[in-house]
Parts: sequence; structure tokens; C-alpha cells
Amino acid sequence: MGVRMSSKSCRFCSKPAILRIRYSGLLVCKKHFIEYFEKRVFRTIQKYKMIREGDKVLLGLSGGKDSIALLHIFTNLQNTLKFEILPLFIDLGIQLNNYSQVSSEIVKRNCKKLGLDVIIVKIKDEYGFSIDNVSAKKLRRPICSVCGLIKRYVLNRKTLELSVNKVATGHNLNDEATFLLQNIINTDVDLLSKFGPIQPTLEGLFVSRIKPFFETYEDDISLYATLKNLEYVDTTCPYAKDASTLQLKTIIANLENIRPGAALAMVKGFYKKIKPLLQSIREEREEKITKCKICGMPTSMEICSFCRLRDRIAKTNF
Amino acid sequence: MGVRMSSKSCRFCSKPAILRIRYSGLLVCKKHFIEYFEKRVFRTIQKYKMIREGDKVLLGLSGGKDSIALLHIFTNLQNTLKFEILPLFIDLGIQLNNYSQVSSEIVKRNCKKLGLDVIIVKIKDEYGFSIDNVSAKKLRRPICSVCGLIKRYVLNRKTLELSVNKVATGHNLNDEATFLLQNIINTDVDLLSKFGPIQPTLEGLFVSRIKPFFETYEDDISLYATLKNLEYVDTTCPYAKDASTLQLKTIIANLENIRPGAALAMVKGFYKKIKPLLQSIREEREEKITKCKICGMPTSMEICSFCRLRDRIAKTNF
Repeated sequence: MGVRMSSKSCRFCSKPAILRIRYSGLLVCKKHFIEYFEKRVFRTIQKYKMIREGDKVLLGLSGGKDSIALLHIFTNLQNTLKFEILPLFIDLGIQLNNYSQVSSEIVKRNCKKLGLDVIIVKIKDEYGFSIDNVSAKKLRRPICSVCGLIKRYVLNRKTLELSVNKVATGHNLNDEATFLLQNIINTDVDLLSKFGPIQPTLEGLFVSRIKPFFETYEDDISLYATLKNLEYVDTTCPYAKDASTLQLKTIIANLENIRPGAALAMVKGFYKKIKPLLQSIREEREEKITKCKICGMPTSMEICSFCRLRDRIAKTNF
Repeated sequence: MGVRMSSKSCRFCSKPAILRIRYSGLLVCKKHFIEYFEKRVFRTIQKYKMIREGDKVLLGLSGGKDSIALLHIFTNLQNTLKFEILPLFIDLGIQLNNYSQVSSEIVKRNCKKLGLDVIIVKIKDEYGFSIDNVSAKKLRRPICSVCGLIKRYVLNRKTLELSVNKVATGHNLNDEATFLLQNIINTDVDLLSKFGPIQPTLEGLFVSRIKPFFETYEDDISLYATLKNLEYVDTTCPYAKDASTLQLKTIIANLENIRPGAALAMVKGFYKKIKPLLQSIREEREEKITKCKICGMPTSMEICSFCRLRDRIAKTNF
């Protein structure tokens, strides 16, 4: 997006514009940026038919700006869209910098303010280990990838236990563009075939997953969170500091810098024109899904990745 | 690639290595880098069956490092692969910095040294205009895109006049990765469906096009040209200085910097796994090709892009 002071006035009122939205050229004041932003997210939700009346939506909260902003937007939209929000926080047990505890408190304060009860899942209590017990080196797998697997698993599992019919996450446009770049480099057509703002329900296996920030730039979310005075975790996870995904995110930011709107064009274009060509790969993938022999959760193997991970963590620790 | 001095010795002999090839980790001395480089290009030619005995190959030379390096490699391989090389230079009539004349002389000297006759096409003489007469602003089209169109047209046209059965160009891996990024951003599935190291012959319309540097990094070509003391044009075209493609090339270079081998993985992977899924788009595209009513060259419209361009240039000049 790129914030830039301007002496011109807002497109929608006579107040001075506080910024020019780079990818659209729009000049807006504070109030109208917030309005523009909220409308934009609402339009994404409507365009992809993300929420229907009566939906029970589990919202995964990390405490970061994206999920916290989404929590506030969801709360605003609750009356219009008539759905139920179930906020959920996964406590990964990261003691470094007190990261998990601080995040957990921020999430709780936000939910309390909005009158929502938050569900807290402590992986240490439920699964017997925490991220601090995971040796990425011994597992030969980047820690962020281990963490991603855990979070996806816990979210899936909770959808069954809580009988929700949707899961929402705060993934933003920059995350999605990074995902594309990453999987184009790796030519992972399996993962590319899953790309999109909404994953349909797979009966008895997965509930529908939605990403209301699919077309929303990270910078816009940061600005929204700042202008709305939201309280969120503004430090990077201590384990993620050298994550290679962060480097790819920088590449996407550079690209956006030289070609404003490039990330949006890429994400929308890929979803609209290239993803449909990957449909057969997606179907093949879905046909292979069965239930894990240990935990009963969906997997394409006999034992799911999470149960295999748990087993390996146990073996590397003892 | 990334040149780095090393006190270790060459992988293939006892001499000190002059560089470490980043994407493969290989340490090599000067002699073995040249050998490695030439073998690599030879393997690409064989892998994609680019050249067969008896082929007449038109080689488009700009005078830059890529096409000059390819000219020298082709000359080396002529006896092994038993094919005929027809070097061709397109004089675009760029008087700024004396660009076209300097390039033309460098090409001529290289060909003379190798005992080859070069065909020179002066677009001013053949088509009545030069790049200096083109107003990109009036045409509302970037000058590099106009120039690309002219070069593709002239190459095609010469294949018919000279009865060659193949056209070779010096496009390298970085060019190909940039093409991918550009067309993924624009989601131009038509162009993406043409992606690859070799374009098959379309009977009576196009002869086969080959890109022997499809899997060769630009840095490797620069180093090869330097170590072999090749004479080439080492300035950017005066019109191309702000070309947006150059900015995208920088993005690819940054990406390669944080993930050595990323460009190679992306180009090979896309060609192998994603391009086949675009086959139907390609076929649809090919079905639409007829002959231009003015010049008889292949086009998907009544009048080809080149004839329309000529007409517009004439109109904007007079």
C-alpha cells in the first residue's frame, strides 16, 4: 500500500487525506480509510460467499494484527451476516520472550472487550509437548513448518469437537502471494491446487476454511489496526526470525514496490485462471484422503502427519 | 551463480578453484568452469532434442553476451552435432550512443573470427522505419515491447526466405524466470502456454524455436564470456534503461540470492508440471492462427501485429 502524506483532500470528504493507497491511487482521510478497509473485507466475504446466515465460525487467533483485526471486523459484521463467532487461541507453549503467555493475554483482553468467550487450547496439556520441546534439527524440518502443522491439526480437531461448520484465519494477501511464489519455486502442484480464499467442506473430513483477508494487503491491515487502536502482538515469534518464508515475503514486498498492485493481480489472477486447471490434481488428492488409524483425523497416509510428528518428538526427547 | 574466491582446489583437478557455483556448490578452476559450462549447455540441447543432424539453424545475434556466447558454443558443437549455423543481426537503427552500429561491428568481428558469414537485416532499408522513429508514447506501448515484436517478426520472416528449419536465440534462465514472473503477475495464460526451451514447428507458419540457455544462469554466461575473452556489447540498450522487465529481473536476482537455485527450480518445474496443464489453451491459440492479409506472415488477427505497428508508426510520423 505505502502510506504517504498528502496535502490533498480525501476522496470522500473535505478533510485532508492521510494517505494514498498505492495500488488504487485513492486518497483518503482516517475515517474513510477505515470505512474503505471494512467495506473491502466485507466485499471479499460476499464475493466468495464465505459466510451464510447461521454459520458457526471458528476463528483462529494468534494475537497478531491480522487475526485481531479480523476478530474486530467479524464482531462488527455479526449482526449483518448473522453468524456465530468462536474465537480460539492455540497456546504453543513458547516460553522464549514469554511469547505464548503475552499473546494469550492480548487475545483474552480483545475477546473480553468484545464480549466473546475465547477457547484456549494448550498443546502441552492436550498433546503432551510444546514448541519449546521440538528440536527442528533432530526432526529435520523447519520449526515454522512444524508449528503450521500443529496449528492446522488443532483447528481441524476443534471443528469436530465444537461442531462448527467453518474455520476462519487471518491469512492476508501478502501471505497468499508468498505461498504462490514458494510453491511455484518448489513446483508443488498439490499445494497449488489448494490455493484460494475458500476451501469447500469435505464431508466428515474438513469443514470449509475461509480467508477474509485473501485480497487485503498486509500494510492495509497494519494501518487499520493502528488507526483503530487495536491491541495486538507486534513482535515476530522468536522462532520465526530467520524463517525463509519471511525472506520470500520481502521479495513480494519489493515486487509490490516496483509494481503497485502486482501481488493482488497475481493472487486474483492465479485463482481465477490457473487454479481451475489444477482441478484434476486436487480431486486426485482428495480421493486419497482417509482417516488416521491413531487419531481418526483426515490424512492421505495410514497415520496422519500430526501423529507421526508427536511420535518423533517423543522419540527425540527421550 | 555468485563468484567467490576460494582457497580450496578445483573439483576436477589440483588447481585452486576460482569460484564456487552457488546453485550446485561446485568448486572449479577456470578451465573446468569453461568445460562445465559448455557441457551443461550441450546437455540442455540434447535433453530437449534441440538440434538434429542436417538442421539449418538461424541464430539471432544482438551482440550481447548471451547471443555471442551461444555463437561460440554453436561453432564448437558444429562438428559434433552436424548442423549449419546462419548468424543473423537485426540492425534496428538505434543512433543513440551509436548503439546499433557498435553492436553490428561486434557481431561482424565475432562471425569473421569464426569464419561465418553474418546476415544483416537493416529494418530501415527493409521496412522504412527504425526504432529511433518509434514514439512509444504515441503508440502507447513500451518501446522494448515494440522492439521485441519487430525482432520476432524479422526472425520469422527470414526463416521462410532462407529456408532454415530452426531459429535459436540467446534467452537465458534469468530471462525465462522473469517471463514467468511477469506473466504470472499478469496471469497471461496465453503467453504462459508458450513457455519452454523449444517451440515445435507449426507447418507453414513457424519453424521450431530453440533456447539452448534455457537452463543456464545469466551470471554463468557472463563469466564464460569473460573467461573466454569474448568481445560483446556490454552496455544496455539506451532505450531499455528503465524497462520494467529489468526491474523484474532484479527481483529474480534477489530471489536467487536468498534461495540459490530458485530460478532454475521454478523454470524447470513450471515447464515440467504446470505447462502441460495449459496444453488446451495452447491448442486453442494455435487453431486461430491464419496468414496476415498484408504480408502473409502468421497471425491470429486479419492483419498481423507487425503490419498494424508499421501502419501506426507511419501515421504517428506523418
